[in-house]
Amino acid sequence: MRIADLGEFPLISRLEPIVASDHADVLIGLGDDVAVLSVQGNDLLLATIDIQVEGIHFLPQLITPEQLGRRALAINLSDIAAMGGQPTFALVSLALPLDTEVGWVEQLYRGMRAEADQYGVTIVGGNMTRSPAPISVDVALLGRVQREHLLTRSGAQPGDQVLVTGQLGDAAAGLQLAQHPHLPLSAADHGALLMRYLTPTPRVREGRLIAQSQSATAMIDLSDGLSSDIGHICERSRVGVRIQAAQVPIAPAVQQVATLRGVTPWQLALSGGDDYELCFTAPARAVPELMRSIKRETGTPLTVIGEILPSAAGRWLVLPDGQELALEEGGWEHFRHRQV
Amino acid sequence: MRIADLGEFPLISRLEPIVASDHADVLIGLGDDVAVLSVQGNDLLLATIDIQVEGIHFLPQLITPEQLGRRALAINLSDIAAMGGQPTFALVSLALPLDTEVGWVEQLYRGMRAEADQYGVTIVGGNMTRSPAPISVDVALLGRVQREHLLTRSGAQPGDQVLVTGQLGDAAAGLQLAQHPHLPLSAADHGALLMRYLTPTPRVREGRLIAQSQSATAMIDLSDGLSSDIGHICERSRVGVRIQAAQVPIAPAVQQVATLRGVTPWQLALSGGDDYELCFTAPARAVPELMRSIKRETGTPLTVIGEILPSAAGRWLVLPDGQELALEEGGWEHFRHRQV
Repeated sequence: MRIADLGEFPLISRLEPIVASDHADVLIGLGDDVAVLSVQGNDLLLATIDIQVEGIHFLPQLITPEQLGRRALAINLSDIAAMGGQPTFALVSLALPLDTEVGWVEQLYRGMRAEADQYGVTIVGGNMTRSPAPISVDVALLGRVQREHLLTRSGAQPGDQVLVTGQLGDAAAGLQLAQHPHLPLSAADHGALLMRYLTPTPRVREGRLIAQSQSATAMIDLSDGLSSDIGHICERSRVGVRIQAAQVPIAPAVQQVATLRGVTPWQLALSGGDDYELCFTAPARAVPELMRSIKRETGTPLTVIGEILPSAAGRWLVLPDGQELALEEGGWEHFRHRQV
Repeated sequence: MRIADLGEFPLISRLEPIVASDHADVLIGLGDDVAVLSVQGNDLLLATIDIQVEGIHFLPQLITPEQLGRRALAINLSDIAAMGGQPTFALVSLALPLDTEVGWVEQLYRGMRAEADQYGVTIVGGNMTRSPAPISVDVALLGRVQREHLLTRSGAQPGDQVLVTGQLGDAAAGLQLAQHPHLPLSAADHGALLMRYLTPTPRVREGRLIAQSQSATAMIDLSDGLSSDIGHICERSRVGVRIQAAQVPIAPAVQQVATLRGVTPWQLALSGGDDYELCFTAPARAVPELMRSIKRETGTPLTVIGEILPSAAGRWLVLPDGQELALEEGGWEHFRHRQV
């Protein structure tokens, strides 16, 4: 069987028993985006790795090397943010065709450095090799979190509310604009959505504050799309969920792009991926204070978009007209085709 | 300028100022194979990343996925070994064409798991993505070392002896056999040299013991070839070196391959790369006890192959006939062509 026939998550499930371990210092291992490791003392060590491959995650004609550098770091920062962690050290592994311009590599590193500086991260090493074909930028990122502030995917409880930071669908709309640059949209909206796709903002500060509040119960970052990523919380927490499409925060410009492309805004917002917003759960009583404090400290709005159900109740998306759809994995599966 | 015109190490030098940092917790950062990080307590955190790219580092028709998995981990284990560290946790980043067989990926992971188990390493996570062309296996490896047992490239002193573990040139001879499978060599030698190339043995135990002896002054692993790698010790320690070709431990089978291929054994042993033996320096008075104890504890022989000189004396290779050659970088530069 080929991996394209199996899909990413079933493949990971088949590999888990091969590498499964009950090492006492591994609090979270394979199957999550971030490993949580007990090293010594009260701080936990977080470790994640994520790659950007030319032709799959980026097209050189659409992204500058500086933007690619920012992006390669940002997608890893987002994984650490989703644990409530403080990112610390990065290692960079580059595979480059021999005809790559030196200036291109320097710009890539400038972008990574700028992004690293913004979040208190130090690039401590890495590796470069030549590649017969596509450029790939692989970043391994370490972080730390106090044991009592670690927030995982596994604590959601029936009755909890489901919240997201920022707005969803911006990146998917930006991708549409990259692929269809002549869509009639204002230059400002065009530029803003494209940037949200090319250089997403990892919600590091928001993630730490949400985790430190100790009132949130589970968290994940939205890399593949809400409809897929919320499934990880449901699986790890053994719960169901009901998402209200009408409550999903979607920018007017994203709605415009959806109309122009003949899709619904929810397709972009729920299955588009690449937003790198945080999605988390918290008991209803804690929500008002969380919304106030995160907005006050970071300027980022939180929005309640649904609620956690018992596992047996399933996973549902309620459309604005009241129709309920089974919430299927419609996210970005690396070995299948993009849904949008 | 293209990176092929510049070469790997000059490119790294140009990138260093872009990412340079004086973070107090970064004892060793960019420019080394391993980052040395102070996290908390007396243990230092080691972090390294190294990739295997199809067509550059391996050919699928010459290596089984299980061997590739072992190798991908081994080259990183070797980097941790060269610091005297204990490897701990690995993250794996795979880029795979869509038509990759699931069984191939499982075998790859089985190989990594077997290698990990052998050295007390736990695979704690990673990432998979599809790739338009070559397979790449990127492994980020963490390790730890007590502060007083850390051994770096920078402590060699004039008068120190230069030693290596095991034998050099095996892997380069194995590569020759992979490329010229009909060389008339005994089947046993053929198989053994090929294995040394495909699945090198990281000298983790040897590295720890050498470092814990606290009598060695600098260490590196031989990935690119002695003639290149010893240069890193010379640069970081600000010393010169004289290597005696006649003292370099070379197996009879390697000498045979060299003859059959019309090269000298020293070309294979000094510039071939991929041996992943350790090269280290130590004062002469400490050498006999080191040789005895490493041999006793691990079975691995140590051989004195030269001595450290003052920096101004330069870097020399003394051939068996007494001729002295300037020891140039003849190793495996990733953006240039292989020397052998």
